[in-house]
Amino acid sequence: MSTSSCPFFMKPVNLKHLAEALQLSIGTVSRALNDRYDISQATKERVRALAEELNYTPNSFASNLRRNKSNTIGVIVPEVANPFFSLALNGIEELASRHNYHVIIQLSREDNSHELAVMRQLVRSQIDGLLWSVASGSQNSAQLEVLRDRGIPVVLFDRVHSGYDVPTVTTDDYESSYQATRHLLEAGCRVIAHLAIAGDLSISQRRWLGYCHALRDYGLPLQDELVVHETAAKPAAEIVRELLLLRPDIDGIFAAVESLAMGSYEVCQALGCRIPEDIKIVSFSNLKSAALLAPALTTVTQPAHSIGKEAARILFRAITKSQLLTAAQSVELKSELHRRASTASDGQVPTNLE
Amino acid sequence: MSTSSCPFFMKPVNLKHLAEALQLSIGTVSRALNDRYDISQATKERVRALAEELNYTPNSFASNLRRNKSNTIGVIVPEVANPFFSLALNGIEELASRHNYHVIIQLSREDNSHELAVMRQLVRSQIDGLLWSVASGSQNSAQLEVLRDRGIPVVLFDRVHSGYDVPTVTTDDYESSYQATRHLLEAGCRVIAHLAIAGDLSISQRRWLGYCHALRDYGLPLQDELVVHETAAKPAAEIVRELLLLRPDIDGIFAAVESLAMGSYEVCQALGCRIPEDIKIVSFSNLKSAALLAPALTTVTQPAHSIGKEAARILFRAITKSQLLTAAQSVELKSELHRRASTASDGQVPTNLE
Repeated sequence: MSTSSCPFFMKPVNLKHLAEALQLSIGTVSRALNDRYDISQATKERVRALAEELNYTPNSFASNLRRNKSNTIGVIVPEVANPFFSLALNGIEELASRHNYHVIIQLSREDNSHELAVMRQLVRSQIDGLLWSVASGSQNSAQLEVLRDRGIPVVLFDRVHSGYDVPTVTTDDYESSYQATRHLLEAGCRVIAHLAIAGDLSISQRRWLGYCHALRDYGLPLQDELVVHETAAKPAAEIVRELLLLRPDIDGIFAAVESLAMGSYEVCQALGCRIPEDIKIVSFSNLKSAALLAPALTTVTQPAHSIGKEAARILFRAITKSQLLTAAQSVELKSELHRRASTASDGQVPTNLE
Repeated sequence: MSTSSCPFFMKPVNLKHLAEALQLSIGTVSRALNDRYDISQATKERVRALAEELNYTPNSFASNLRRNKSNTIGVIVPEVANPFFSLALNGIEELASRHNYHVIIQLSREDNSHELAVMRQLVRSQIDGLLWSVASGSQNSAQLEVLRDRGIPVVLFDRVHSGYDVPTVTTDDYESSYQATRHLLEAGCRVIAHLAIAGDLSISQRRWLGYCHALRDYGLPLQDELVVHETAAKPAAEIVRELLLLRPDIDGIFAAVESLAMGSYEVCQALGCRIPEDIKIVSFSNLKSAALLAPALTTVTQPAHSIGKEAARILFRAITKSQLLTAAQSVELKSELHRRASTASDGQVPTNLE
């Protein structure tokens, strides 16, 4: 059905108008438009034809009230300081706006008990569905059970629990990490550090595995002390400084998280290590200014906006069509490796522009 | 009162324990702890002494339920892609966590009618208070009336409405813009462009006025075509490109908004303009990587985290002490000018490190 093109001085057509014109009850017209089983195909077609002719637009808010919908979805993310999450939120807001839905955002603060508390609160607020990127350390299914008990559809994105029958929207973390590490190896690096996300998230594991397998395929040993994790207890620069002082032979850094890549830039400047001559750096990052850094940072860029949008698209399909969500509806999107000056080989330093 | 240090195998002390030990009613103990007028000073002291001795910790959630509190505050911000807002949110979350409060975030998407809709929804969700940074173009008081009707305390931060009797937490926008422009003038710039925030926000006006007065005090004329605004309709780089092609004599840029500064870097690279030799740039920015850009960006840095925290502090004072909020409680914090390579004068290029 097209959106209403009634000129503004005409009253928009409503269900009552349709019912009168068709000599049907309002209930029958409504059920016909909602494609209900107890209305004949012939009646459905008559109703739809007139609705289309008169540019009838359903009042989605009122119709959702009747179905006990709140026209609100919840979003739980660990934080918003990471541009990945703010871009994903923009994608979610874009789709919600198109569906005339509100979005309530809550931060889990990377804290499991807080995450469970905000989820309970969202459930009490009668959200129609939830988009969720889990806090690191979320290992049990208590949160998912809260949702299942209330029949609230959920789609996980980026940071997901595996092993549950819910749709996930993720990126090719293993493959893109393998490619990023391989890119460092091909540029000549032989002692490559891996700077990992805190906790034991599924994305951390996949990024670490991509790194391990790239080293293995190059015949290089895995060295535990070359792998460090971000932590709330220590500034990013401090973590990198300790690593580079412990292992001055490091000639490549693969950061799974942007904050540790920024820490690496700071420390390299302070210690007088030249990027890319002494150390080459590649990082997962959605930082808009990556290409403007000194030197421009090679990144694995996740399609953050599309991830948010795709997760919302799956959720709205479930909400508007009462479709059951299962793991079978999961989607994996591709990240892109942007090669820039921070990983250039000798004599092949590209300009700062991509 | 200190927080409870009961070993975990002991049941925490509650009001009933205190009442039994003191041979008082639970109501009297509760009223004494809440410092109510109808309890004698002697009783208050007896109750407090025992409460302290037994490490009694009030169950704030239960006590707020009794007072009809939802233990939730709402936050409305235009967007979260700007690091200013994500840092301010961190400050708000920090204080909310300390008060055992939940934070519901909603984005106004820089759209007035959506802003009004999300505010109505927050009011329906029974928030105890609201922190609000207004969308550009918010000119009427409809939103504030929604809150006043329900007696919900509100604190405005950064982007504020003026002329209403509510507290605001802002920064010294006029003064810091004057200083930033003066810094460009002292570095030798004579044709300075001003890249402004969209809409007619109070902060846009103050930042523009600081720029105007610095030019005037240097005896330079104000040229309308040197002032351009960001807009959703055009990418930042496009706005800057058109400006620099129109006025190739521009030798300084004062950006009131980070996205236009990033656009300026991109365009300067593309057009072969050298920063700072051909054009010097200073920008309002909370970008963590400002010091790592090529060249390092001179910034006016707002204390974003403190702004969020201070706004929350004022709001929680109102919520927990039922204190009336007025404009008299407004606070202005200071921004800092960080001088870096993007505004260095000839022969005085500092290193990238601050």
